[in-house]
Amino acid sequence: MNQGLKQQVVSANQLLVSSGLVTLTWGNVSAIDRESGLVAIKPSGVDYNALTPDNLVVVDLDGNVVEGDLRPSSDTKTHLELYRNFTEIGAVVHTHSPCATAFSQAGVALPCLGTTHADHFYGDVPVARPLTVDEVASDYEHATGVSIVELFNDNKLDPLEVPGVLLTHHAPFTWGKNAAKAVDNSIALEMCAKMALMTWQLNPNAGEIPRHILEKHYQRKHGKNAYYGQS
Amino acid sequence: MNQGLKQQVVSANQLLVSSGLVTLTWGNVSAIDRESGLVAIKPSGVDYNALTPDNLVVVDLDGNVVEGDLRPSSDTKTHLELYRNFTEIGAVVHTHSPCATAFSQAGVALPCLGTTHADHFYGDVPVARPLTVDEVASDYEHATGVSIVELFNDNKLDPLEVPGVLLTHHAPFTWGKNAAKAVDNSIALEMCAKMALMTWQLNPNAGEIPRHILEKHYQRKHGKNAYYGQS
Amino acid sequence: MNQGLKQQVVSANQLLVSSGLVTLTWGNVSAIDRESGLVAIKPSGVDYNALTPDNLVVVDLDGNVVEGDLRPSSDTKTHLELYRNFTEIGAVVHTHSPCATAFSQAGVALPCLGTTHADHFYGDVPVARPLTVDEVASDYEHATGVSIVELFNDNKLDPLEVPGVLLTHHAPFTWGKNAAKAVDNSIALEMCAKMALMTWQLNPNAGEIPRHILEKHYQRKHGKNAYYGQS
Amino acid sequence: MNQGLKQQVVSANQLLVSSGLVTLTWGNVSAIDRESGLVAIKPSGVDYNALTPDNLVVVDLDGNVVEGDLRPSSDTKTHLELYRNFTEIGAVVHTHSPCATAFSQAGVALPCLGTTHADHFYGDVPVARPLTVDEVASDYEHATGVSIVELFNDNKLDPLEVPGVLLTHHAPFTWGKNAAKAVDNSIALEMCAKMALMTWQLNPNAGEIPRHILEKHYQRKHGKNAYYGQS
Repeated sequence: MNQGLKQQVVSANQLLVSSGLVTLTWGNVSAIDRESGLVAIKPSGVDYNALTPDNLVVVDLDGNVVEGDLRPSSDTKTHLELYRNFTEIGAVVHTHSPCATAFSQAGVALPCLGTTHADHFYGDVPVARPLTVDEVASDYEHATGVSIVELFNDNKLDPLEVPGVLLTHHAPFTWGKNAAKAVDNSIALEMCAKMALMTWQLNPNAGEIPRHILEKHYQRKHGKNAYYGQS
Repeated sequence: MNQGLKQQVVSANQLLVSSGLVTLTWGNVSAIDRESGLVAIKPSGVDYNALTPDNLVVVDLDGNVVEGDLRPSSDTKTHLELYRNFTEIGAVVHTHSPCATAFSQAGVALPCLGTTHADHFYGDVPVARPLTVDEVASDYEHATGVSIVELFNDNKLDPLEVPGVLLTHHAPFTWGKNAAKAVDNSIALEMCAKMALMTWQLNPNAGEIPRHILEKHYQRKHGKNAYYGQS
Repeated sequence: MNQGLKQQVVSANQLLVSSGLVTLTWGNVSAIDRESGLVAIKPSGVDYNALTPDNLVVVDLDGNVVEGDLRPSSDTKTHLELYRNFTEIGAVVHTHSPCATAFSQAGVALPCLGTTHADHFYGDVPVARPLTVDEVASDYEHATGVSIVELFNDNKLDPLEVPGVLLTHHAPFTWGKNAAKAVDNSIALEMCAKMALMTWQLNPNAGEIPRHILEKHYQRKHGKNAYYGQS
Repeated sequence: MNQGLKQQVVSANQLLVSSGLVTLTWGNVSAIDRESGLVAIKPSGVDYNALTPDNLVVVDLDGNVVEGDLRPSSDTKTHLELYRNFTEIGAVVHTHSPCATAFSQAGVALPCLGTTHADHFYGDVPVARPLTVDEVASDYEHATGVSIVELFNDNKLDPLEVPGVLLTHHAPFTWGKNAAKAVDNSIALEMCAKMALMTWQLNPNAGEIPRHILEKHYQRKHGKNAYYGQS
């Protein structure tokens, strides 16, 4: 795998720390080279500042290690299931960022309460169902990915329009076109969750923003005629 | 436009980051040269530490770009509407700082619960109404500015006495005589919103401070006979 | 006044910033030389990192400026009233630290909910009454000090045992034997206020700690036979 | 005692500060050399950045100082009681980290609300009972240790599976195989407490995670066939 993509994965993992999204080693970023079908991912339990392009683990889409001496993230099978099914995404991020994890633990979807959310997620960030005893026993991390894909298919959600999910009893995953954008989505998710908690403290009946505002904000940034940022 | 004013705009945009008010690229500062009627504003979606006086965008009060190769902030028309109507202000700041954004999302005005607030805002920081479908469709950012000006006119508020507003479903704007003071007002607004949230958690009936205390604190800092700071 | 005491005042003011207790210029520290009766205090509205022993303001206990070219903190008269009446204290600190300010705004005394509090404050941190229209009009900052002294006298509180107070509608003051200890008390007050807010969120009926635990923790640190720290 | 273990104790004490777990001097780490039965512990009330292997205090399991000129942490007897009874642990940490302290003050056990918790604690982090007047009067810090050991014995808890406790009216203790792991457990405890507070704010009925998920997460990291981290 080329060094450029690996360096992006290293930088994105380290950005999790500098953004305050991870505590200890509770998070990982991977990215895929769609041409070769190879995925570079953080090795399990390794400190973020010890990461280099050379100690990342490279796996194929079936989970076979093709480069690297370390064990890949214990969440690797979840990442792979997302890459196999969400064919337009280029990177996946998992964190236990505190506010998004609180929503996950509470089993509460994150509704779109304002334009901050609408700028990043085209509607609610949904909650995936708890896993069954059998799923956990047989192939836990794979089943986690399956439950996410199932949720998006059942609800006809476009993974690039809603680039994140909350796992019941667990924590969030986000993704994006590339590693930097996938981390941006983790940052945005955490901040929107924090704001939602405070919004409901102020007004327990605060509801979703009107559809025309959601539409406007999402489209001015992500739509065909987007005018946010530099083209 | 002279470099000094541009440098102030660069520094004020970067102060948003060091003050913890912005996440990702969720904020922008502009300042106006009242003699020429030209406004320097942050380019859209550009990293704060990449800003220099030379990559700011300079627009006239009608929104025509007169200097700069980048696209101006997507919120430029809101800034311009404020400059056209609030003729004594010299700078405008927009952020999505979390506590003030929570008040915006909740649609709750920020009352003056203590002297911290009274030192910066001469009374409540009000909430501007939601925009209609037509306003959003035809000229969203301009209509945002119009709704703010309308709110201040209808309530006979002096923009220099109440240098900020909360936008329903969105986030705050603040302003001031110059870029540094406008950012100070964003910092004060965020901290007052944070304190108000905790005050209400302790005492849901906590009310506004008595008029004579509001008057004293505002006037000792901003009145004719002010004795706060160095003259 | 000797440079050593002035340097302590500079360092203590700067510690307010590095400890996260002050935003903008919302805080000030002074210290008194009891032999000469002179007080060194922060100049009003000056940035903390611009402070030097030479730009502090030195006043006597009647408030006459005896050294320095700048205007003293607008809260100087409150400091002086405390020095005149609490004759064993050597330094005074005022901040608008967010959690302690929330208690002040809510008008709620901070009870001793745990040993963290008992290590620093021998019982509740009380709330001083609101000031009357006349007091605010005639000599606001002096009356603030009077209300604190009155509160401690009426309740027979020892200012060294309870080295802090919450001002209704305003914010906290703390004090101590010297500038470093007075700042430590501001830090402890803010953290105890933060913990109390969360304690009540978990258990609205959480009460004060039993008297024997308060006694033990306060005395092992501050009593005649104290064994906390190095003697 | 060998310098290596002492250096680990110094580093672990300093990690408390950089991790944001301690304010002022509210925390201490010790570690034991099981061969000699000697314990190195932080001296009482000393600044963390002034610590060196040479100014640590070394005590035997009866509390006799065998190395060092300073007074040991006032909590030393609690550490020793834990070492005497929890014979597999190698280090003990005490902090007043704010969220875990709030649970202690509220007298509320920290249930396992998600996988973040299950990755570190095999079930609830329990609350030790308040100490009696006699216990506090006669040998407070020893009795604190006794109450923890009693709690673990009565509930048949394995100290390495549940490496932490909340003390009513006080604050948490954690422990682990070595100083670094004991601090990791303090960090994890604080973050899990923070997440639990927010989880209950979102959903007051949020319950413990299902047993099969707790089992899976704890065992994939700590069990015989663990596959988290590098072996």
